Amino acid sequence: MKHYLKHDPWLIVEEDFHRNYNEITESVMSLGNGRMGQRGNFEENFSGKTLQGNYVAGVYYPDKTRVGWWKNGYPEYFAKVLNAANWIGINITIEYETLDLNTCEVRDFRRVLNMQEGYLERSFVALLKSGKELRVTSKRFCSIVDDEAGVIRYSLTPLNFDAKITVEPYIDGTIRNRDSNYDETFWDEVRKETGYGEAFIELRTRKTGFHVCTGMNVEIEQDGARIDFQSQPIRQEKYVANRMTLECRQGQETVIYKYAVNLSSLNYETDSVVSEARKYLQRITGKGFDRMLIEQQQAWADKWKTNDITIEGDIAAQQGIRFSIFQLNQTYTGEDERLNIGPKGFTGEKYGGSTYWDTEAYCLPFYLATADQKVSRNLLLYRYKHLEKAIENAQKLGFKAGAALYPMVTMNGEECHNEWEITFEEIHRNGAIAYAIYDYVRYTGDENYLTEYGLEVLIAISRFWSQRVNWSEAKQQYVMLGVTGPNEYENNVNNNWYTSYLAAWTLRYTVEVVGRVKQLNLEKFNELCDRIHFREEKEIATARHIAEHIHLPYDENRQVFLQQESFLDKELMPVSDIPKGQRPLNQNWSWDRILRSCFIKQADVLQGIYFFEDDFDLETLRRNFDFYEPMTVHESSLSPCVHSVLASKLGMKEKAYEMYLRTARLDLDDYNNDTEDGCHITSMAGTWLAVVRGFGGFRVRNNQVVLDPNCPANWQSLAFKVRFRGALVEIKVTQTDVSVQNFSDKSAEIVLFSKPLIVEGKSQISVKRPANAEVAVNEK
Amino acid sequence: MKHYLKHDPWLIVEEDFHRNYNEITESVMSLGNGRMGQRGNFEENFSGKTLQGNYVAGVYYPDKTRVGWWKNGYPEYFAKVLNAANWIGINITIEYETLDLNTCEVRDFRRVLNMQEGYLERSFVALLKSGKELRVTSKRFCSIVDDEAGVIRYSLTPLNFDAKITVEPYIDGTIRNRDSNYDETFWDEVRKETGYGEAFIELRTRKTGFHVCTGMNVEIEQDGARIDFQSQPIRQEKYVANRMTLECRQGQETVIYKYAVNLSSLNYETDSVVSEARKYLQRITGKGFDRMLIEQQQAWADKWKTNDITIEGDIAAQQGIRFSIFQLNQTYTGEDERLNIGPKGFTGEKYGGSTYWDTEAYCLPFYLATADQKVSRNLLLYRYKHLEKAIENAQKLGFKAGAALYPMVTMNGEECHNEWEITFEEIHRNGAIAYAIYDYVRYTGDENYLTEYGLEVLIAISRFWSQRVNWSEAKQQYVMLGVTGPNEYENNVNNNWYTSYLAAWTLRYTVEVVGRVKQLNLEKFNELCDRIHFREEKEIATARHIAEHIHLPYDENRQVFLQQESFLDKELMPVSDIPKGQRPLNQNWSWDRILRSCFIKQADVLQGIYFFEDDFDLETLRRNFDFYEPMTVHESSLSPCVHSVLASKLGMKEKAYEMYLRTARLDLDDYNNDTEDGCHITSMAGTWLAVVRGFGGFRVRNNQVVLDPNCPANWQSLAFKVRFRGALVEIKVTQTDVSVQNFSDKSAEIVLFSKPLIVEGKSQISVKRPANAEVAVNEK
Repeated sequence: MKHYLKHDPWLIVEEDFHRNYNEITESVMSLGNGRMGQRGNFEENFSGKTLQGNYVAGVYYPDKTRVGWWKNGYPEYFAKVLNAANWIGINITIEYETLDLNTCEVRDFRRVLNMQEGYLERSFVALLKSGKELRVTSKRFCSIVDDEAGVIRYSLTPLNFDAKITVEPYIDGTIRNRDSNYDETFWDEVRKETGYGEAFIELRTRKTGFHVCTGMNVEIEQDGARIDFQSQPIRQEKYVANRMTLECRQGQETVIYKYAVNLSSLNYETDSVVSEARKYLQRITGKGFDRMLIEQQQAWADKWKTNDITIEGDIAAQQGIRFSIFQLNQTYTGEDERLNIGPKGFTGEKYGGSTYWDTEAYCLPFYLATADQKVSRNLLLYRYKHLEKAIENAQKLGFKAGAALYPMVTMNGEECHNEWEITFEEIHRNGAIAYAIYDYVRYTGDENYLTEYGLEVLIAISRFWSQRVNWSEAKQQYVMLGVTGPNEYENNVNNNWYTSYLAAWTLRYTVEVVGRVKQLNLEKFNELCDRIHFREEKEIATARHIAEHIHLPYDENRQVFLQQESFLDKELMPVSDIPKGQRPLNQNWSWDRILRSCFIKQADVLQGIYFFEDDFDLETLRRNFDFYEPMTVHESSLSPCVHSVLASKLGMKEKAYEMYLRTARLDLDDYNNDTEDGCHITSMAGTWLAVVRGFGGFRVRNNQVVLDPNCPANWQSLAFKVRFRGALVEIKVTQTDVSVQNFSDKSAEIVLFSKPLIVEGKSQISVKRPANAEVAVNEK
Repeated sequence: MKHYLKHDPWLIVEEDFHRNYNEITESVMSLGNGRMGQRGNFEENFSGKTLQGNYVAGVYYPDKTRVGWWKNGYPEYFAKVLNAANWIGINITIEYETLDLNTCEVRDFRRVLNMQEGYLERSFVALLKSGKELRVTSKRFCSIVDDEAGVIRYSLTPLNFDAKITVEPYIDGTIRNRDSNYDETFWDEVRKETGYGEAFIELRTRKTGFHVCTGMNVEIEQDGARIDFQSQPIRQEKYVANRMTLECRQGQETVIYKYAVNLSSLNYETDSVVSEARKYLQRITGKGFDRMLIEQQQAWADKWKTNDITIEGDIAAQQGIRFSIFQLNQTYTGEDERLNIGPKGFTGEKYGGSTYWDTEAYCLPFYLATADQKVSRNLLLYRYKHLEKAIENAQKLGFKAGAALYPMVTMNGEECHNEWEITFEEIHRNGAIAYAIYDYVRYTGDENYLTEYGLEVLIAISRFWSQRVNWSEAKQQYVMLGVTGPNEYENNVNNNWYTSYLAAWTLRYTVEVVGRVKQLNLEKFNELCDRIHFREEKEIATARHIAEHIHLPYDENRQVFLQQESFLDKELMPVSDIPKGQRPLNQNWSWDRILRSCFIKQADVLQGIYFFEDDFDLETLRRNFDFYEPMTVHESSLSPCVHSVLASKLGMKEKAYEMYLRTARLDLDDYNNDTEDGCHITSMAGTWLAVVRGFGGFRVRNNQVVLDPNCPANWQSLAFKVRFRGALVEIKVTQTDVSVQNFSDKSAEIVLFSKPLIVEGKSQISVKRPANAEVAVNEK
């Protein structure tokens, strides 16, 4: 845990330069606009600890798989999120002294991520070895209005000298991925051009052949007015720059505006990326930094209008939820259905790939409630478009007849992950994709989606489950052997409760959807049956038989579901019995010891109860929570949020709050000692869930918003907004009251504390919290 | 399966050059003398498919571990058997034409490994593009008398021309391991020297710092007489040679004798390896090729005198067993207790390491019965000397108080293997090391070994087992979770019967040995207790309690032991149901599918029944054999031999013979399509077991040799020799008779067909096979 970042409701603030934590700060202060993004690196040269990171959405490299011992079925490559050309660089030389915060003294340092307005700014005074003192301020953002552009205002003020200062804004394509498997570079140079104050470089990714043109245009102001300058073009391998030497007087501010664009062949004809980049640059330069910043602020204000969550009385908690919402919006805007939500977004390159089950299980509910319906629909379509590859993937593993296994990690639908116990066995991801269809339709009521796309995916996934189980003569039930559940601290287990329950649910839901689609559009249904050779009677009978006869391990004594068949053979003990200094387990215990232990990486049975909460009564939840939670080490970032939601439901307010802080401040406080690799973007959706589903008690049931809100004891109030079928409502919860404000014209039907209410358009109602609103059982 | 090698009782013969199979032939025709060895490569340049391989025993390279996803506990390196300097090379140029069998036409090609006398010879006529015809013959061997030397007689006869022929004998240290993890070279050059007809190169291994000097000396004969020649020294990076141009007339034979030595700093002072190599070379050159060959033949004759097995009436079977005995003797002589029996011996570099559980479980019985007692004692001492490292290895995995886990693969006692389900979980290897102590003492009667070394190892291994199990509240028994048995086609299973049985046996045996050592030498016992903090009462009580209460999964219905707890949840089917073209499974099925299937890579429950045969009656063996054998795919080379032994015991003669041929001709017929990587040296001991324990029915029980011999239906006779406590006896079995000849002076007590007999020294007895000697139950 680290506490050097200041608590503030809207800002992330680093005061004084924390050199050793620089890579953490860079991760936290990342910028993005859904199309491109970057870490909070310095513009000027920095010889200290830093991970330079610039990323272009959808542009990846298929890095050749590296394994110790090859096993049949492993994928050929792992898709790496590509570190792209650095466009922020501006090197500064003051009469032969390079400005480098690693080698000079630094005063009044302040780096601030402004989440309200969507920019990063920094200011400091550098005390050079020569005795010169230079004040620097910079402000930059990735525009969400012009989402292939980023701009920088970089200003220099000599405090105690006059001098010639050489400024070299550049674009550097000599970057490498730190996680390259074979230490290769992933980019080749195609073309470069330089002109007065401008420069372009076109790079092509090896193997995948993506072209990306990164271009820049520079303007300079002194004394508040634009000046002409001499510009010396620099052209090196994969590097272009302009060098200009400026006369700077003591006390005079020199401002460099650097306009930059990143255009990729995903969105432009390959042979026009440079010319389009030039046009794009001209347009934004014409608009100018100040105008762009105003547009940026306005666009973020619009986002916050529907997304914001306010917490009064707890700045750390407030900062954490805003940080989560901010980063999610930076990562994914939902405008391009080819893109998805990478686990590190634009904040780092570790793990690679762009799509994990995190998207369906954690992120979808966030976008359902905070964005236009097309955003979540695009997330579903992304998987629909990968269906063919998921069927191929299953074929590689020996499945037949249109069975689909979606990949664990992917960029284009192909499997990238290579660790047998996960790649081949962590198959619950397939169920999460089915669940997301259910979740989307439940929320939006868009049943047409089932007819058009959903059912086809559901049938393919159900076919997989039907083939993946086998009949156990010994048990006279279906068993699912060789599985890894969400709890990756057990591998290759039999009858993982979560996976088997999810499989049986998928089979039942598919049967249900078959019936519904036949009602909605029999013609389309028949077309589908023909196209995918769906033998309705037989496949439905099989699905029903499996769903009815699947083995779900259960402990009659404790009346809890068993994570997996042999769980009770383990030595059961609480996390509190682990000796000090041995956590996190994955950095201290050998893998076999972790596997043999009862300790749980993330919610597993509880994840299932969370998904299917209406199938289980509160006492069942409580028994399972009380059994599993004490054995859970939460070494996955996806764990605390689920526990927080469930604890809220159980009225365990302190536990819910503890788990909330753990998820909300995971990166801000570097809880798992790994934020330097990048932020945990997808688990930020879990933070949102902990607030809205947990404290807010927000659900959608029977086409209605259901609310059972609550407020942690130390908060004065909590207010969150949700979109629901055209309405936008804000729910504000205090210790005594709940108010619901309807911002839309449409009236909203809600069920509050089990009572149906109608909130008319553009109106607000308030109710007192009923005495029985708290769950009756005391927290343990 | 390939059948291009000729069947012959004493020779391995390739007639006509099988270019595409060259790497297979190179493996099969490897030479070795326990100290150094090499593949059957050509002396002259060859541009076709070849794996150049020269190896020096005990000299290895710790190649940095390569994994896909690092897991805590993985070892830092994998010890690679090092491809060392090529000392056989002799390049031949005939007036600007290079002799290269890949580019010229070849006639009368013949390559022969002579197992009786221990050499490799080759002859052919090369038809060069120029029309020149050149006869070449070569003969070489690695001397087992001068075991750091190898010699070559290489002869050239122009058949239709006179010409100047340039001959360049060389030593080439620019070799690489094909399996290098990071494509690095493993050797640095230290020094090189050249002189008249001689050259030396001293290389040093990176990281490990072994020095090896490879030296050569060349003599040339024409018309049967030694000639003087002009020698031009060649010195390149890691390469030394002498170039000589010789006038060769049509029909005249020119013979090049190349004497070579490999001296390593394992056996010499580092700074004297070159001078010692020079002395060594002088000595063997003085001795001369012909004398050395006679000594080689004599030494091999001596080996065969005690090792040979003769099979009359089945040349393929005869060749297979001789090949196995020959290769085992080439790989390990037992004279240096720092060495061990690598899985590929000197025939290839795949897998790396030198020591696997194969040594204890398969090879030890071979050396017990065919070599001096000190050889098997040295194999045990090797592990004793690694005890400290085995304790460290266990500590890394969280075990305490002197518990030892021997490595899966090692060179110096440290673990090299890195695949969690094997490295951390295939712990039965630890039991094999305990079993070997039992096996050795049972065979030799050398109980002093227990006092001196054995008990200390047993206690450390038992401590491991005691900590590795845990009490299952659910079962009210001890369970062993997260294990991989010998059948590596199941991973991370619970309660693998073999491992748990072996663990319980180790605990019981340790308790027994404690008692025995206290009787033998109480003082030494007390010393040991003090030194290793053995708390006798407590540790013995724990061991007994675990051994009595360990969970051993069993199927009451079928009355068979279960490979692992959940085996009966699998879909059970015979190997014959696998569709054609899908075997071997490990090249056709994805890993998870293999794991979920019932198919067995190698004997697992049956391995246990084989080890502890006296604990189980014949019907128990039969039930388990009948249950498991049909599901066994034998994709481990260690599998068929065990099945052959057990089938013999069950009187299933055809199955025993089928399994025998499969193990005996595994490499000769390239059964698993992988002989090009090297031969399966350790499983050759299994071949020997299939004959001697299987057909021969040879056991040691109660300090007696017990025989229950048998002879496959198509064999006229089988004769094998065993050493036993100073006696050397040959057992000859025909379809009707059994004779036992005692070559030693000492009389030998044996139990033949359950009847005790005494065979006086230097005498022979013959008995008719009794009518009831066949097991009563018909073969299925």
